[in-house]
Amino acid sequence: MRDFSTDHHWLSLNTATVRKSEGVEQPLSVILDACARHGIRAISPWRDQVHAVGLDKIAAQVKALGLQLSGYCRGGFYPALDTKGLQDALIDTRRAIDEAKTLNAPCLVMVVGALPGALQGKALHKDIALSRAQVRDGIAASLEYANSVGMPLAIEPLHPMQAAERACVNTLEHALDLCDELDPAQTANGHVSLGVALDVYHTWWDPKLYGQIARAGKRILAFHACDWLTPTTDLLNDRGMMGDGVIEIPKIRQAVEAQGFAGFSEVEIFSSANWWKRSMDEVLQTCIERHKTAV
Amino acid sequence: MRDFSTDHHWLSLNTATVRKSEGVEQPLSVILDACARHGIRAISPWRDQVHAVGLDKIAAQVKALGLQLSGYCRGGFYPALDTKGLQDALIDTRRAIDEAKTLNAPCLVMVVGALPGALQGKALHKDIALSRAQVRDGIAASLEYANSVGMPLAIEPLHPMQAAERACVNTLEHALDLCDELDPAQTANGHVSLGVALDVYHTWWDPKLYGQIARAGKRILAFHACDWLTPTTDLLNDRGMMGDGVIEIPKIRQAVEAQGFAGFSEVEIFSSANWWKRSMDEVLQTCIERHKTAV
Repeated sequence: MRDFSTDHHWLSLNTATVRKSEGVEQPLSVILDACARHGIRAISPWRDQVHAVGLDKIAAQVKALGLQLSGYCRGGFYPALDTKGLQDALIDTRRAIDEAKTLNAPCLVMVVGALPGALQGKALHKDIALSRAQVRDGIAASLEYANSVGMPLAIEPLHPMQAAERACVNTLEHALDLCDELDPAQTANGHVSLGVALDVYHTWWDPKLYGQIARAGKRILAFHACDWLTPTTDLLNDRGMMGDGVIEIPKIRQAVEAQGFAGFSEVEIFSSANWWKRSMDEVLQTCIERHKTAV
Repeated sequence: MRDFSTDHHWLSLNTATVRKSEGVEQPLSVILDACARHGIRAISPWRDQVHAVGLDKIAAQVKALGLQLSGYCRGGFYPALDTKGLQDALIDTRRAIDEAKTLNAPCLVMVVGALPGALQGKALHKDIALSRAQVRDGIAASLEYANSVGMPLAIEPLHPMQAAERACVNTLEHALDLCDELDPAQTANGHVSLGVALDVYHTWWDPKLYGQIARAGKRILAFHACDWLTPTTDLLNDRGMMGDGVIEIPKIRQAVEAQGFAGFSEVEIFSSANWWKRSMDEVLQTCIERHKTAV
């Protein structure tokens, strides 16, 4: 396992971690400058943050600052009530693939979606098996385009508590079953074309985690770190800083690196009650410190 | 599948559902009288509620009212830091088995516990594999005593969002793996001695749910119903009334009954922001109505 204790060479910042500072929404351009200032050499930005500033401007800034991407968030959200909805999701994911390409991302992170309407508070149906079938078909369709332009897709299984609203792929096993079904050859153009984004927050609880990491092998395209707090007071925005919770992050990273993963460790913390209330410099300094001691 | 639409013959009330009425804690004796008044013929009480009134008094009242039990909550909480802690959990579960016997419960529901200290807000270690080993050993020890007195143990897998604080058994598959390991013969004294309590709230999201229900067969000792709300605002106490959320309850019940399950459908709703604020009569009437239309 790589030694992270002396520097933050392998730290990437998922830019949602400082989406807000002192409660105020922060432009991605400001976040990128702060990363450069703190010697953070990689990021994983969210589409809405990119769009708010402009793709071309962000692409130019990323290049000028010498930043790399560890991923691009996100494609997916396939399930829909009708053909038009399904088509719109494919078109939107194709756009996300193009943007990921423009930003030179190593993969597009796929948050696949779940029950249509649930995210808005009112599910339009309860048939999660139907949503899962639409997700499978959606990934298959997106993969064709992604392969044609050479952009790997990384399915991110989300925690089961987000199965209704955000993703109906909730275990690493399920994500890998999809990979094996849709991409049995495991590669296109010499690269893994369909893999997974492994977030310790979503997967730490799983009794099959280590077995499935071993199964995943080269399909692990991204590694995300934060921590699980006790108590957790919000199902979405109460993630903890590494070291403040109960996840055995180094043990999971060790298992992931044993499969050959040698990419960035991406810090992704949604925290409306704590970290989003602090200053950007304090959050980044803490990320850097904890990356050395708790990842 | 049994027809529940015309009466509430198979409705059991988990007494936590009306633990509070209009915000005020309710004695179990009052709850039992209310059940009798509403023609609810079965209950599943919690130990703290029983203890607050007194075991003998509750046993006498249950008998006088002609109530049955669908389960008794709960044994388990095995993981501990030291030998004394482990022993205390065994002693406590043995007491729970005795109480379940006194109340003529068909099974003791096992909430197995997780990381010591996490429920109090500060985990004393993060080694969930250790906790899982302690749970396995604890169930094995409790099972010996349970078999000697003829009390089936029903392992309840809890939702993964409760893996740190309440139970490190979080999927039906994991619970059944434990059953198969600790009780390969599947029976003692002519009954299933180790099985599962299947709560739709904890398991609905699982892509392997239906396959594991088929595997479970006669091991399904209890069936619990409520609903998953979108959004869910609290990880413990924001369960929904059947029909108000996204769980395909009838579909799951059908799968469970296809395995021969013919027991009660136990309504278990923890709801600090909604149902615990209403009157007991309103909650029970709503349970009865929804048991007919949404279970």
